[in-house]
Amino acid sequence: MTRVAAGSWQNWLKKTLFSSSSSSRTRKALSNLASPAHEQIIKSPPLVSLDIHDDIWPLHPSTGFGDLASSSIQEPTTEQIGRVIDGKSIAERIRSGIASEVSMMKSSIGKVPGLAVILVGQRRDSQAYVRNKEAACKEVGIKFVMTKLHEKCTQDDICDALSKFNQNPAVHGIIVQLPLPEHLCEGKILDVLSVEKDVDGFNPMNMGNLAMQGREPLFIPCAPKGCIELLLWHNVKIMGKKAVVIGRSNLVGLPASLLLQRHHATVSIVHPFTKNPEQITREADIVVSAVGEPNLVRGSWLKRGAVVIDVGTYPVEDPRCEHGYRLTGDVCYEEAVRVASAITPVPGGVGPMTIAMLLSNTLESAKRTYNFFT
Amino acid sequence: MTRVAAGSWQNWLKKTLFSSSSSSRTRKALSNLASPAHEQIIKSPPLVSLDIHDDIWPLHPSTGFGDLASSSIQEPTTEQIGRVIDGKSIAERIRSGIASEVSMMKSSIGKVPGLAVILVGQRRDSQAYVRNKEAACKEVGIKFVMTKLHEKCTQDDICDALSKFNQNPAVHGIIVQLPLPEHLCEGKILDVLSVEKDVDGFNPMNMGNLAMQGREPLFIPCAPKGCIELLLWHNVKIMGKKAVVIGRSNLVGLPASLLLQRHHATVSIVHPFTKNPEQITREADIVVSAVGEPNLVRGSWLKRGAVVIDVGTYPVEDPRCEHGYRLTGDVCYEEAVRVASAITPVPGGVGPMTIAMLLSNTLESAKRTYNFFT
Repeated sequence: MTRVAAGSWQNWLKKTLFSSSSSSRTRKALSNLASPAHEQIIKSPPLVSLDIHDDIWPLHPSTGFGDLASSSIQEPTTEQIGRVIDGKSIAERIRSGIASEVSMMKSSIGKVPGLAVILVGQRRDSQAYVRNKEAACKEVGIKFVMTKLHEKCTQDDICDALSKFNQNPAVHGIIVQLPLPEHLCEGKILDVLSVEKDVDGFNPMNMGNLAMQGREPLFIPCAPKGCIELLLWHNVKIMGKKAVVIGRSNLVGLPASLLLQRHHATVSIVHPFTKNPEQITREADIVVSAVGEPNLVRGSWLKRGAVVIDVGTYPVEDPRCEHGYRLTGDVCYEEAVRVASAITPVPGGVGPMTIAMLLSNTLESAKRTYNFFT
Repeated sequence: MTRVAAGSWQNWLKKTLFSSSSSSRTRKALSNLASPAHEQIIKSPPLVSLDIHDDIWPLHPSTGFGDLASSSIQEPTTEQIGRVIDGKSIAERIRSGIASEVSMMKSSIGKVPGLAVILVGQRRDSQAYVRNKEAACKEVGIKFVMTKLHEKCTQDDICDALSKFNQNPAVHGIIVQLPLPEHLCEGKILDVLSVEKDVDGFNPMNMGNLAMQGREPLFIPCAPKGCIELLLWHNVKIMGKKAVVIGRSNLVGLPASLLLQRHHATVSIVHPFTKNPEQITREADIVVSAVGEPNLVRGSWLKRGAVVIDVGTYPVEDPRCEHGYRLTGDVCYEEAVRVASAITPVPGGVGPMTIAMLLSNTLESAKRTYNFFT
C-alpha cells in the first residue's frame, strides 16, 4: 500500500496562514475585519479588502486561524435572546448620512444624484414600492424621475425608455421595477441597462464580480447589501460562522449567499429541492430567509442564539389593519424571537434597509461619475 | 398574540409545485433531468433547460417534489462501494466524439476550431499542462497556436498578445496559462480576453451567467464542467442531493458550487475559515474537493456511499516513480475508496476531463462562430 503523504486540514491551515512574507493587502483585510469603518455612512467595506487568498495567507503567527474563527462566534446568554434588529432606525441613520453627502455634493459642484425608475403596469405592490423609493429620494435630495408604461407595452418600449435614461447624464441609477408582465423578457431588458447605472446590481457582470475573490462589483444588490449592513451594525461577526440562506433567487438569495461567502461565512443554500431544510437551518449561526412564504421558518428551525434576517415580505389579510392586510415575513416571529439572539421584524427590518442601500448605490454612482469623494 | 398564518415548507412546496398552468419550459426541464442527452458528445444540458423557477413550478401533480427528490438518492449496496470513476476513458470517448465533429466541420465548411495559449515564464507544471493541451488539440484536429512570453514580461506584452488572438478569426478559444508571475495582474489581463473566446470561462460575465437562473454562460469553466460530466456519465443524480465543495477558488471551487446549484443540489462550501469541515463534509452525498493539499480529505470525512470527485492535483516526491514524483489528489484514496460509492482517481479522474472540456468549449465556440450545427 502506498504510504499516505502528510496532509491534513490543520496542515493546510498552518501552511496557508503562516507561509511567505507579510502582505499589506492581507493586513488591510484583517484590520477591516477587526474594526468596521465606523466613520462611513454604511459599514460594508469594499469586498476586495476582505479577500484572503486561501493559498497564500501570510498572517502573523499570533493571529492564527483558530483565534479568528473562535472570536467570531459568540454564544448568547439568556439576556441576549430576542434582540430586535431595528432596520427602520438604522436605515434612518444611513439616510441621514446620505442626505448630508448629497447636500455637500450640491454645494460643492452644483450636482445631485439622480435615480430613474421604469414602472410597467398597475400592480399595487409595485406602485407602493415605487412610492416608497420616490419618498426616500426626496427626503435625501436625490432627484427622482419615472417612466410609467402600460402593462401591454412591448419589449422595445421599455428598451427605448432605458436607452434614454442610459444616455441621460443626470441619471446615475436606473431600476426597472420587477416583476414585469409575463410577455416581457426580464433578462433581455436588464441587459440593455447600462452596467454603470445598474444600482440594483442585477447585471451578470455585477453578479460575477460579487462572486469572485479579487473582484469588486460596481453595485451590490440592495436587499442582500442591507442584510449584511444589519449584521455589521449589530456587531455580528460573519467570518467563520455557519450561514444558511433560504431561497436562491437572482435578486436576493443568490447574491446574499455570495456576499456572505465573501465575508468568509460557511454558506449553505436551501431551496425547494433541499431535503430536511429544517435540520440544515437549525445548524446555522446566521439565517437569511428570502422566500416570500409567511411563517415558513418556525422556531424549531433555529439554533438557540442564531441571528435571523427575514427578507420575506408578504401581505396577509387582517381586517383589523387599516388597509385590510398586514405585512409578514418568512419567519414565524413570535416563535423565533424566543430562540434567536437577534432577529429582524417585518415590517421594519430589511425593507427600509433595502431602500437605504438603493439610495447609497445611487449616491456611490454619482460620486464615481463626478469623481467626487469626500 | 397575533395568530400565526398558515405556512410551512410543505405548503410552499405544494403551492409552487402544483399551481398555475403547465409550462413547456418546466416540462423540458423535467425531461432533461429524467433522460440525459445520450446522443450528445457531452452530457451536460444547457443550464437554462434545468431551471425551475422556485415560485412558479407548474408540475403535473403526479410528479411531486417528494418523488423527484427521493428518486435522486440511491443508497449504495456493499457491492457498489468503491466504483472507480474512470475519467481517462470517459475523456477518451468525449475526445473521439469531438474529433468526429471537427472532421465533419472541416469537410463541410473547410474550417477547424483554433485554440490559442499564452504561456508566461518557465514553470515546469505550466509547461506540462500546456504540452498536454497541445497534444489533445492535435489528436482531435483542433489547431493549436501558442505565444510564449518571458517571465519578466509586462502587462502590456500579454495584453498585446491577447489582442492579436482576440482579432484572429481562426482562433475561437484563448487561454492564459495560470498562475502568472506575481508582478502581473491576473484579473486585468483576463478582462482583455474577448468574452466570446474565453473558453476557460473565467470572465465575471460568464461567472454571473453561470450563477443566475434563467441565464446561460457562453462557457462553463473546464474543471467544474468536467466534474459534472463525470457525475452524469456515472448516472449520479444531482438534484436534491447534498453537495459539499471544498475550496472556493475562482477557477474551480466557486464555479463548481454554482454549477451544482444550477443542477438543484443543496450546496455547502467549505473553506479555510470553516469550523468542523470534517463534520460538514461527512453529511454530503457528493463531495467535490479542489484544494491542492494531498490527503486533506480522509476516509473519516466521508459518508458511506458518498460520491467523491477529487480535483486536487499535487506532485508528491516518490523516488520509485520515473520523474521522482507522483501526482496525488486532495483525497486519501486508499481510505476513501472503502467508504465512497464512487470516486475519481488522481491521476486519471478530473484531469483528462478538464482537457476534454477545454476541447469541447473550443469546438462549441467555433460552431457558434461559423453557425455550424450538426
